[in-house]
Amino acid sequence: MRLAVLTGGGDCAGLNAAIRAVVRTADHRLGETVIGYRNGWNGITEGLRDVLDPEAVRGVLTHGGTMLGASRSHRSLAEAGPDPLIAQLQKDGVDALVAIGGDGTLMTTCMLHEAGFPVVALPKTIDNDVEGTDVSIGFDTALTVATDAVDRLHTTAQSHDRLMVLEVMGRHAGHLAAGSGVSGGAAAILVPEQPFDIDEIAARLLRRHRLMGRSASIVVVAEGASPRPGTVALPPPRYDEWGKPVVGGMGALCSEWLAERTGFEIRTTVLGHIQRGGRPTAADRFIASRLGSRAADLLIDGVSGYLVGVAGAGIGLSPLNEVAGRTRLLSHEELAMLDPLTTAGPPGP
Amino acid sequence: MRLAVLTGGGDCAGLNAAIRAVVRTADHRLGETVIGYRNGWNGITEGLRDVLDPEAVRGVLTHGGTMLGASRSHRSLAEAGPDPLIAQLQKDGVDALVAIGGDGTLMTTCMLHEAGFPVVALPKTIDNDVEGTDVSIGFDTALTVATDAVDRLHTTAQSHDRLMVLEVMGRHAGHLAAGSGVSGGAAAILVPEQPFDIDEIAARLLRRHRLMGRSASIVVVAEGASPRPGTVALPPPRYDEWGKPVVGGMGALCSEWLAERTGFEIRTTVLGHIQRGGRPTAADRFIASRLGSRAADLLIDGVSGYLVGVAGAGIGLSPLNEVAGRTRLLSHEELAMLDPLTTAGPPGP
Amino acid sequence: MRLAVLTGGGDCAGLNAAIRAVVRTADHRLGETVIGYRNGWNGITEGLRDVLDPEAVRGVLTHGGTMLGASRSHRSLAEAGPDPLIAQLQKDGVDALVAIGGDGTLMTTCMLHEAGFPVVALPKTIDNDVEGTDVSIGFDTALTVATDAVDRLHTTAQSHDRLMVLEVMGRHAGHLAAGSGVSGGAAAILVPEQPFDIDEIAARLLRRHRLMGRSASIVVVAEGASPRPGTVALPPPRYDEWGKPVVGGMGALCSEWLAERTGFEIRTTVLGHIQRGGRPTAADRFIASRLGSRAADLLIDGVSGYLVGVAGAGIGLSPLNEVAGRTRLLSHEELAMLDPLTTAGPPGP
Amino acid sequence: MRLAVLTGGGDCAGLNAAIRAVVRTADHRLGETVIGYRNGWNGITEGLRDVLDPEAVRGVLTHGGTMLGASRSHRSLAEAGPDPLIAQLQKDGVDALVAIGGDGTLMTTCMLHEAGFPVVALPKTIDNDVEGTDVSIGFDTALTVATDAVDRLHTTAQSHDRLMVLEVMGRHAGHLAAGSGVSGGAAAILVPEQPFDIDEIAARLLRRHRLMGRSASIVVVAEGASPRPGTVALPPPRYDEWGKPVVGGMGALCSEWLAERTGFEIRTTVLGHIQRGGRPTAADRFIASRLGSRAADLLIDGVSGYLVGVAGAGIGLSPLNEVAGRTRLLSHEELAMLDPLTTAGPPGP
Repeated sequence: MRLAVLTGGGDCAGLNAAIRAVVRTADHRLGETVIGYRNGWNGITEGLRDVLDPEAVRGVLTHGGTMLGASRSHRSLAEAGPDPLIAQLQKDGVDALVAIGGDGTLMTTCMLHEAGFPVVALPKTIDNDVEGTDVSIGFDTALTVATDAVDRLHTTAQSHDRLMVLEVMGRHAGHLAAGSGVSGGAAAILVPEQPFDIDEIAARLLRRHRLMGRSASIVVVAEGASPRPGTVALPPPRYDEWGKPVVGGMGALCSEWLAERTGFEIRTTVLGHIQRGGRPTAADRFIASRLGSRAADLLIDGVSGYLVGVAGAGIGLSPLNEVAGRTRLLSHEELAMLDPLTTAGPPGP
Repeated sequence: MRLAVLTGGGDCAGLNAAIRAVVRTADHRLGETVIGYRNGWNGITEGLRDVLDPEAVRGVLTHGGTMLGASRSHRSLAEAGPDPLIAQLQKDGVDALVAIGGDGTLMTTCMLHEAGFPVVALPKTIDNDVEGTDVSIGFDTALTVATDAVDRLHTTAQSHDRLMVLEVMGRHAGHLAAGSGVSGGAAAILVPEQPFDIDEIAARLLRRHRLMGRSASIVVVAEGASPRPGTVALPPPRYDEWGKPVVGGMGALCSEWLAERTGFEIRTTVLGHIQRGGRPTAADRFIASRLGSRAADLLIDGVSGYLVGVAGAGIGLSPLNEVAGRTRLLSHEELAMLDPLTTAGPPGP
Repeated sequence: MRLAVLTGGGDCAGLNAAIRAVVRTADHRLGETVIGYRNGWNGITEGLRDVLDPEAVRGVLTHGGTMLGASRSHRSLAEAGPDPLIAQLQKDGVDALVAIGGDGTLMTTCMLHEAGFPVVALPKTIDNDVEGTDVSIGFDTALTVATDAVDRLHTTAQSHDRLMVLEVMGRHAGHLAAGSGVSGGAAAILVPEQPFDIDEIAARLLRRHRLMGRSASIVVVAEGASPRPGTVALPPPRYDEWGKPVVGGMGALCSEWLAERTGFEIRTTVLGHIQRGGRPTAADRFIASRLGSRAADLLIDGVSGYLVGVAGAGIGLSPLNEVAGRTRLLSHEELAMLDPLTTAGPPGP
Repeated sequence: MRLAVLTGGGDCAGLNAAIRAVVRTADHRLGETVIGYRNGWNGITEGLRDVLDPEAVRGVLTHGGTMLGASRSHRSLAEAGPDPLIAQLQKDGVDALVAIGGDGTLMTTCMLHEAGFPVVALPKTIDNDVEGTDVSIGFDTALTVATDAVDRLHTTAQSHDRLMVLEVMGRHAGHLAAGSGVSGGAAAILVPEQPFDIDEIAARLLRRHRLMGRSASIVVVAEGASPRPGTVALPPPRYDEWGKPVVGGMGALCSEWLAERTGFEIRTTVLGHIQRGGRPTAADRFIASRLGSRAADLLIDGVSGYLVGVAGAGIGLSPLNEVAGRTRLLSHEELAMLDPLTTAGPPGP
């Protein structure tokens, strides 16, 4: 029995641990190598594949990114339907596939499954918004990088009436902003789940400086956060070459709006791509290893069609068609916590 | 309404984030300060208490240890029953208590609850073996430290036929050994849940060096791991002043046994107290903040008698009498994963 | 005898270690406390001072920033001449002053010295361009942050023909760009000391991708780097409220220029304020402690008028008037090294 | 012209950066590959060599250890004199050699030079005691690891009357103990350069706890520290298979002695091999890169017979016969600083 593995979408930390676990488990149970497709789904159609044995994945645990290469767009593949992919997989002698990726990969995986090809998916996104898992591969490393940035901004913010605005990733969900903002002790956290009123944020910051004696504040802004409709003038939306709205720039906009309303000195930092890369944390390596090993086990045992995710202290399976296309947002509990943990002192003026 | 908070047992990373969250949530919802007892449960009987307002917990998020002090033994307190503690809490004007701790603290908290005093517990242990929560405060930081040690040993192990044996904490459960061993790529992982056969381990390591061309191997040993009965001669057990068995030293014993059986050069490292301390990771700060905030919310809302733990992506409540005195061990899934992820190549001969 | 200490200019990591060393050395040798002026030189004229004993500096070694507050501009103080400062210092009972800072602080310190007030200076700047010292307090931490960013960008750069441009600090000198670029393995490093030819950089990157099979490259740009005159059109210079030219934006400009010339996909990261802050590295704490202790020793022994800097494995003194107003640039050796370490393969067609 | 490179003695962080710099500089200036001997000097006699081009050293900057393998003992080689080594080097077509190592490597390098073979040496030791350089490759990483351990012990030391004793490397010189002890804020630092009086250390610690209100103290002990003769009973010395005295165990001895004299609870940590390994710091990568590049430059330019070391902000050359066999100890300035920075408060009674 021959397994294959690929990593779809953008890269993040922990992918190599998952690939290694698939390869070692196949070797341990089957005594077989694994086919690794390069550059995501494109590797199937373009014939880019490596033969992976335990030696090939030696030493990759601590390496960020993906040894197989990632690939952003597989829109055209999805439009072509499952047949060309399945035809090529069969031609390559592949019996079952482990696909590691985010929303796009889940859709394609679901399509393959419904066409009868044995496949499981592993969740991967630094936005942490894949449904069907408590946490996705790559999130803990990104959280660590973003929290480290908040920590560093704290020590440099000790001037009179200074705001440090930090824009972190998070297009639809605020997991990274909430996590780094709470862990780093931000004064305000703006997330996509809850449109903000910039006047209220400004008033809160002014109160914090005027009544509570603080000289500096940190505001963490998810790239996908947005103002409550009608509260502030927004620049016209921009779209990329595929017609998707371009996010980013919300940190700079918030800085402008807050400067006008508070008169404070404002400095903006956009974390950008350093959130995505680098040496994976121990937690990312551990869950990626467990998920990869379990994914191989399942396919070898004839089970397919699932997202293999973290469920509590264990691993849980979710049917692909129930999770593909859905987005896991911050829970009510997490949103409710933001208020007491980011403001101190009585709410009133 | 007046809340109090204390940290029982040994210290670990993340405790200050939990204390801060209790204080800020009480301030936010009640406009009240919180009483912080010093040195664990002893602080109640000895009258050691601080008044905590948001200013008092400012800047503690990144500090390891506990600002309230910890305290190992409260055996005598437990033997005296709940009445003296409750009498003093009432005298201090405390309406409800958040107790952060491990097994001993859970027992005392359970006793207070059964005597009618409003109390909730938060789980804390670097062994990660508290029942009723997916993960305990302090574990992620300890996992990070132990994995970093494995990473460092890897680079220095590149000599001919060398074994590096690393002893990590874990008296009854192997979460830390399994986590750091898998994340760091250890060749063998010995955990309390599964008594080991040292001859089998030695044979596996010899095979790894002789047949698979590896020149060095890392073995991670939990302090509470033990050989399969009858397989090897053990030194007589030692007991501490309270009659509890003394653990530790299993790393050195394994080194001796493996040296005899393999002839390899062996180096032993005992990680010790550096696992317990230091700047908390982002994940530890985040879950400690969430649990602390939720604990205060519950008591303010009149709910008590629970362990407030991590349950999947959210928070779960477990009745104290169902979790106190129990130990959360590695699951079958985690134990099953150790084999493929720590050996490579064919099992024979 | 009464010493005072202040930190002028922007903050960086390691300042607290220097303050602590001054305080502990004064306590050890004199049994006296030290006056700490807040907010740099402004603290003298505005009467903002703390009394510092060893207890006051306890636990600050690991804290970034400065416990005394920093202050950007002391232009007006400098213009008022030394007399008001000296009058106030004498009124406060200060016999000698340790001033920790960069170029502005050195000028003011020099002015005080020439007016007869006992003073020594310690070098502090993440640009590392203070003359009279091998390295300045704060540089090693900034180098660590910038190198970590390069490391993270590497793992995420593994796509086809992608450039990652990273802008780091360095207004007049390229120490931080050269250090992080070499340590991180950048493909090109642009520094203020050597105006660049963007066509040549683009040609080198094209050759690296086309002839040497690399799919991605990292370019590190110091904020003060500039194109060779006449090679490219620059936007008009901007000036801040004091008439000083505003730097920054060179990373984005280089990205544009390189995108036009290579057709590669380009991503820009501006590290910004996170370079300045955060927990100091061990090396920063060690040299800051040594310099602070030596500064106090010198003043107690009646020696003043020097910059106390790192000189080899030891400490060296430079007369203030010989180093104030001068800028330490990258040496010829360092500039010569950039070429072999950032390009690989024959220089080609 | 053909260069060769090898790494002698034990491994440490930064060696790969030096190897990479030699290879890239040879490629850049000569268009030639470099011969890399494996396992130190043994690689020459045993014919273990790799051909290194820029591709072979790609990605090694962040890897700890040495890609060429290290080798502890070359006593027999030294006894055989230079002729067999030179004969083999010439047979391999090697025109000049870069040897990276500590004291043993310097002796062998010096022997080759005196026999007329072109060679330069680069300094490498985590003890930092090579003469002729301000700092050796590997020291900054070891300092970072040891300081991190002190930081972690601090947070866990907050109990009543507890001592944490940390043993770090340093056989003849206390650079690592002094650096980590000062940077981490130890209460006492014991170094080989200054035999200690354990009664005085105990009295100082008692004073610190009894008169200054501290509840916990950290003592950093270099493995090569020793008590003042006649002050305390030492176990008989042990010798290894080559008749060299075995160091280590001084941390545990100090713990016993201090427990007897203070009655404090004592915990001992021996850092061991994790000091030697792991990802090199930015500073280690930067100086290793500079030294490696310069070493290649010198040999290509016909200059040999020198140790190429760090000299201030630049690079300095020392004739091999002036530095081989010598040990760089802590300076008077560094020793004098230990007292004010490790004790606080008045000395008496």
